[in-house]
Amino acid sequence: MKILCLSVVHYADFHAGPDRERRPERGADRLPGTAPTRDLASTMKYCPDCGGKVSHRIPADDNRERAICDDCGTVHYQNPLIVVGCVAESDGKILLCKRSIEPRYGYWTVPAGFMELGETLAAGAARETLEEALAPVEIGHQFASVDVVDAGQVHIFFTGRLTGGYGVGEESLDTRLFSEDEIPWDDLAFRSGRYALQVYFEDRGKNNGVHFHELRSKDLTLKNED
Amino acid sequence: MKILCLSVVHYADFHAGPDRERRPERGADRLPGTAPTRDLASTMKYCPDCGGKVSHRIPADDNRERAICDDCGTVHYQNPLIVVGCVAESDGKILLCKRSIEPRYGYWTVPAGFMELGETLAAGAARETLEEALAPVEIGHQFASVDVVDAGQVHIFFTGRLTGGYGVGEESLDTRLFSEDEIPWDDLAFRSGRYALQVYFEDRGKNNGVHFHELRSKDLTLKNED
Repeated sequence: MKILCLSVVHYADFHAGPDRERRPERGADRLPGTAPTRDLASTMKYCPDCGGKVSHRIPADDNRERAICDDCGTVHYQNPLIVVGCVAESDGKILLCKRSIEPRYGYWTVPAGFMELGETLAAGAARETLEEALAPVEIGHQFASVDVVDAGQVHIFFTGRLTGGYGVGEESLDTRLFSEDEIPWDDLAFRSGRYALQVYFEDRGKNNGVHFHELRSKDLTLKNED
Repeated sequence: MKILCLSVVHYADFHAGPDRERRPERGADRLPGTAPTRDLASTMKYCPDCGGKVSHRIPADDNRERAICDDCGTVHYQNPLIVVGCVAESDGKILLCKRSIEPRYGYWTVPAGFMELGETLAAGAARETLEEALAPVEIGHQFASVDVVDAGQVHIFFTGRLTGGYGVGEESLDTRLFSEDEIPWDDLAFRSGRYALQVYFEDRGKNNGVHFHELRSKDLTLKNED
């Protein structure tokens, strides 16, 4: 019996990768607020291994419902995804990106996205910064971790130091360095990024360990009333 | 077009959950050293959404190969998995578990396992400690993070404090509190757990931020020659 793990659906509600959000028709039914994450386990209908139908039940010797193939018996697990981000600094200013994609088109974000296979957490954070702001960074330390429980995601943030110039990546309309009193708090894209910036400035460059934060809402975006 | 994420195969090489390793026939072809993780993207043959066949290619506007359904066009992503663990202390001693399952049957481990949907990192670490050692813990701070790149996993370790008694969970043959000079270094099960214990003792209870470590081997187990 083989064991395969199916992670939760990639909501199109986080800047994940170049292919995930540029097409507006894609994931339109999975935008924040439209689908309860706890139900994601039941989205698998067919076995990725053999194409057979799957049932959703608690396997023997387990205590959670899993997707199990009726034909080959494979158990398919679903687990949280990792998002990695970087608060990159240069001469006391912070690099932010203005999003060129939905959701939160036109709002500002810390460079971040889904960690990929074959990279470390730090390498993923650096890659996202390079992709979104064309900015090479030297990663410092992890300072924040946001459990977005109902989205099945963990957002992990690192400090970084710009080691070269920066530009405007494909997912960005603009990128800019902001001093602390220039941060566009009312025009930030995501809750986890706002939290990261808040504790980043609290730390004043010191490694105080990881600030943990829990977001229960599966809607990662900031709304005007927030 | 829908977007689904398929994470990497759950190797049967880490104490994941009660159902994953107790059956010796399961995952026998996926034990450490038998399958390169980089190839896991190609293990999906059928679309979990519609049962159609998938192709493995780089989507337009992406830069990585993904599994794409030939019929419905869904892109299935694969991303790293999170393992959470806890170094739990009581009166200056550390709680370890002697494994009752393969791999590394009979060797000692820090309580740890795959993070589940619906929980925070810290809650996952506490749950694993409760399951493996029947020990309720109060989670402290994150002190270590091990990127097991070729296994597609990130292992995140917390400090903890026992808040009650402890016992022997189903995945354990024995559990015991060890003082620092009693730690069975030569009989530990996993590389990441050994690293966690090493830096835990270096910290001497202080939150020095997260110690990062990268393991390139996809074999998580310690061998006699290590």
